[in-house]
Amino acid sequence: MAHIDLDDGISGLPSLLRFRPETAGPLSALAETLLRGPGPLERGERELIAAYVSELNDCRFCASSHGACAAAQLPGGTTLVRQVHADPGEAPISDRLRALLAIAAAVQRGGKEVGEEHVKAARDAGATDVEIHDTVLIAAAFCMYNRYVDGLATSLPADEDAYRQMAERIVAHGYGSASRPG
Amino acid sequence: MAHIDLDDGISGLPSLLRFRPETAGPLSALAETLLRGPGPLERGERELIAAYVSELNDCRFCASSHGACAAAQLPGGTTLVRQVHADPGEAPISDRLRALLAIAAAVQRGGKEVGEEHVKAARDAGATDVEIHDTVLIAAAFCMYNRYVDGLATSLPADEDAYRQMAERIVAHGYGSASRPG
Repeated sequence: MAHIDLDDGISGLPSLLRFRPETAGPLSALAETLLRGPGPLERGERELIAAYVSELNDCRFCASSHGACAAAQLPGGTTLVRQVHADPGEAPISDRLRALLAIAAAVQRGGKEVGEEHVKAARDAGATDVEIHDTVLIAAAFCMYNRYVDGLATSLPADEDAYRQMAERIVAHGYGSASRPG
Repeated sequence: MAHIDLDDGISGLPSLLRFRPETAGPLSALAETLLRGPGPLERGERELIAAYVSELNDCRFCASSHGACAAAQLPGGTTLVRQVHADPGEAPISDRLRALLAIAAAVQRGGKEVGEEHVKAARDAGATDVEIHDTVLIAAAFCMYNRYVDGLATSLPADEDAYRQMAERIVAHGYGSASRPG
């Protein structure tokens, strides 16, 4: 049961967006900008970073929903997402994305965990300053969303297929649509 | 030195807001809503929660700047902020705020660290659902801002007085003003 009185029919982050519309606006705008706004990282790559950090934080709702968004927008689909969650070092991704995921993992542990060696490895693999910036901010943002969702003990959807449906809606209409009833 | 090419004349979060104006908008809007928008917690209390979480994350820029904002808006001023950073259990604050700070500390460790006992203690001390919600979200948001600021190794202001000046501007004009050159 959630720590506060949320709508029983809604799970995860959407239940919190519904509970407090004043904060829902900026939170949805941030997700939309980070994961779908103009930027050098592909949308599927950004969702993969979000899903990977959520997996490291063991946030089931965010790892599953952003994993579904990543799978829907990357050629490797669900299999690739599972491979990255299991071990980004062995997953069939570019060296650039692998180095960015290592930066994201450092951010998940703490801001000061990002060392010059992580940044150099990303740069050597071709990452730009904006890509490094966006990776750090996406990883940091999911340390927020994950704590928000689990810190208030929101519920999970009864049916795993709900994540795929959420992802379809987000890929088509963006994060403004995620807080609206399905 | 910062991990990416930031403006040398600006420190902390403002240097990142300047670097990437596309993400600066939603990040500033979120800070403004969380720390100054309509809500049951006083602005000084919200800044204290933000400063306390930043202190736990050892983020010097955020702990000092939000500590200065808290000091400027609470009767206890700088002394109270120092007492809370040292030990909220002993600081001269209400039981309600003490219980909310315990929730914030749990969120800082991880979303699943918030237990029913934390929420019950806050409720027993008179906290409402919205106050508990806002505390969790502010604490979670500073786990983002702290990681963003330190994950890119932003610089600190040369002069400690810069924090007091920043706080004066924020208290008077809000977080939209924080990204503009002072």
